[in-house]
Amino acid sequence: MIQRIFPLTLLLLFCLQISYAQSFKINSDRLHASLMQLSTFGKNEKGGTDRVAYSEYDLQAREYVISLMKDAGLSVSVDFAGNIIGRKKGTDDTLKPIAFGSHIDEVPNGGDYDGPVGSMSSIEVIKTLAENNFTTKHPLEVIIFTNEEGGVVGSRALVGQLSKEALQVVSNAGITQYEGIKKLGGNPDRINEIKRNPGDLAAFLELHIEQGANLFNEKKDIGVVEGIVAIDWWDITFTGFANHAGTTPMNLRKDPMLAAAKFILAVNQTVKSYEGRQVATVGKIQAFPGAGNVIPGEVKLNLEMRDLSSEKIWTIYKDLEKQAQSIAEEFDVEFNSKHIEVASKPALADPEVRRVIQAQAEKLGLSTLSLPSGAGHDAQEMARIAPMGMIFIPSKDGISHAPSEFSSKEDIANGANVLLYTILELDKKLQ
Amino acid sequence: MIQRIFPLTLLLLFCLQISYAQSFKINSDRLHASLMQLSTFGKNEKGGTDRVAYSEYDLQAREYVISLMKDAGLSVSVDFAGNIIGRKKGTDDTLKPIAFGSHIDEVPNGGDYDGPVGSMSSIEVIKTLAENNFTTKHPLEVIIFTNEEGGVVGSRALVGQLSKEALQVVSNAGITQYEGIKKLGGNPDRINEIKRNPGDLAAFLELHIEQGANLFNEKKDIGVVEGIVAIDWWDITFTGFANHAGTTPMNLRKDPMLAAAKFILAVNQTVKSYEGRQVATVGKIQAFPGAGNVIPGEVKLNLEMRDLSSEKIWTIYKDLEKQAQSIAEEFDVEFNSKHIEVASKPALADPEVRRVIQAQAEKLGLSTLSLPSGAGHDAQEMARIAPMGMIFIPSKDGISHAPSEFSSKEDIANGANVLLYTILELDKKLQ
Repeated sequence: MIQRIFPLTLLLLFCLQISYAQSFKINSDRLHASLMQLSTFGKNEKGGTDRVAYSEYDLQAREYVISLMKDAGLSVSVDFAGNIIGRKKGTDDTLKPIAFGSHIDEVPNGGDYDGPVGSMSSIEVIKTLAENNFTTKHPLEVIIFTNEEGGVVGSRALVGQLSKEALQVVSNAGITQYEGIKKLGGNPDRINEIKRNPGDLAAFLELHIEQGANLFNEKKDIGVVEGIVAIDWWDITFTGFANHAGTTPMNLRKDPMLAAAKFILAVNQTVKSYEGRQVATVGKIQAFPGAGNVIPGEVKLNLEMRDLSSEKIWTIYKDLEKQAQSIAEEFDVEFNSKHIEVASKPALADPEVRRVIQAQAEKLGLSTLSLPSGAGHDAQEMARIAPMGMIFIPSKDGISHAPSEFSSKEDIANGANVLLYTILELDKKLQ
Repeated sequence: MIQRIFPLTLLLLFCLQISYAQSFKINSDRLHASLMQLSTFGKNEKGGTDRVAYSEYDLQAREYVISLMKDAGLSVSVDFAGNIIGRKKGTDDTLKPIAFGSHIDEVPNGGDYDGPVGSMSSIEVIKTLAENNFTTKHPLEVIIFTNEEGGVVGSRALVGQLSKEALQVVSNAGITQYEGIKKLGGNPDRINEIKRNPGDLAAFLELHIEQGANLFNEKKDIGVVEGIVAIDWWDITFTGFANHAGTTPMNLRKDPMLAAAKFILAVNQTVKSYEGRQVATVGKIQAFPGAGNVIPGEVKLNLEMRDLSSEKIWTIYKDLEKQAQSIAEEFDVEFNSKHIEVASKPALADPEVRRVIQAQAEKLGLSTLSLPSGAGHDAQEMARIAPMGMIFIPSKDGISHAPSEFSSKEDIANGANVLLYTILELDKKLQ
């Protein structure tokens, strides 16, 4: 008898827990208070936050975050890359963990929402589960990544993509990544030991502000991220002949500035002429010798393109290259181009994880928009080893990386609840 | 009897001298040898000349030039601005002097012909007169001006246009004009004492290489300069909104780079659409913040226009300003412009002096072209106080201010002969 009743009781308890779980709500006031407390570490006179990775402010903020994580009942450790990892056991601790998190470091004079929203919400999810005495089947891992703004350092290390050369790069705090990781309590010489492999995690989720104005302008609550775009750069050079701006008649010039100008307009027109959300930018231009009284001999510019499809980026680039060659001919100058690898492969979100995010948002009565992430995130690295999903919330006017960066308390709570329910749903669905 | 014979003899001698004068020819070999000797002062490994004003090379070259001038029978002095002035008495020394000359300083890594052609030819003219025992009615003055390349310093001082502030400007030799002038044996504190006033000179002439390709391309021997163009600069700013190059959709951008590009093309098209030889150049451009992954918030560029008519420059500018405003509207950015005084007044050659140059060149069997000087010269300053004329000779491919600058020995001799005969003709014509 007891043998028959016990499984039934377990089933009953399980069902009760499930239905109970569906009424959980994160504590919006507590979440917001923790965000505001985090924002005090590195706040400057201009209202911005100078909490660059490896700075004293970063160290203080990490102490605060670690104490919050411990309060929430997580077992906290700092790995060899300086990532803070908080682990919560699952009812079946042999299952692969569901991981989620973000970062708390900022660009110089940055804002209060960028990485912190996802970081504090991840901890709030654990607190909500804890105060409801709810334990997922899967173990959970909250990861606060090292130095996201300085090149997604922590997540690259976790997936075995941080080279020795990258460790020697000087970061915003004025010290190398190597020195910085040491300062955080990591051990840069043993970084290869923390490498996670494909299949090690059940899923990875990141909640983040959009850093663009799509959600804000379209008045949508939640962005279901399709993936993180590939980024390609080209160093473009138009070479003509430097000459005296006073003595060289207009019809005898080989002026690369004119070719560069026509090319810049062509980039804009061409990129907009293709269907889709691809973007292209010329953010940098220089004329040589660069004097007001000299027709330039050379104009260099940087072309950047981003899209979820590398193939599409290259199709558009080939189109532009053709145009550049005929523009160069028109102005009797030469065109040269050099491709620079930035993040040439897009990191697509897992379709199943996307569907779960979408469904949970809808169940919570929130409006959604599917969109690519034009900015890089730790999630792009984690996508190398795990089914990845990202949840966006609106940023006011699309502003980020600036003191005026802002997301409302309600939007943040919405995002945290979607994160919570996505974890619960994945916990049910995944092995 | 003697009273009647004496004037007749004088008349006879005068006529003989006149006809004799018409057969003078400068010594092309001697002129060329002196040019080549001058080019040794400051010659660098790249074949260029580093004889910037106030450098040791400049001092050595000046010593050489002074010795040549003394050999030619000139009374040589160095004025308070460091100008080297060689004077030859006239038969009527109460007449105003006819002055001519140029400069021997160069831009860094410059060529051998720029100012030296006119300087050495001026001395050669004196030598030719001396060896033919010919004395003009008017006193003659050969002027080798101080630091032409660093802002027509000597000629500005001579016409009372060199301010105390200008004396504090650091020149290419790394010292201020004040220190430099002292080094040349001048006295910058007494510069106002050397000021010449309108009417002090009968005329001023300068022979120079064209620094453009008009004569070279049209295979003309002599350029009869119409005047030295006015130069106007505008600092142009297009202001948009700096934003994330990945997260800002194409249709939500306020990208000043696009406006700047369209404006640059408009400058070129508009300037060419007006009749005449006016030129306009955008030689300098900068985007802010100037990163490949940021849509610029601001693009600054420099617009330069040159023409013999200030009025025309402003007519074209007003046309461009209107276009810039509509371009700014099109791209949802702001347009701002600031006029910078460079040399806002053209320096027109004296029509009578131009006619004499033209006629003498034709008498010598040389082909001519009337053209403006797009580059600045000491003659532009001298035009403030004297009827001014300039003679150009071809520069190969229009190149100047570079080691590859070149004018043929024959072209140089042609220019020197036209200078000689223009002086002789003006000597006859002018009071």
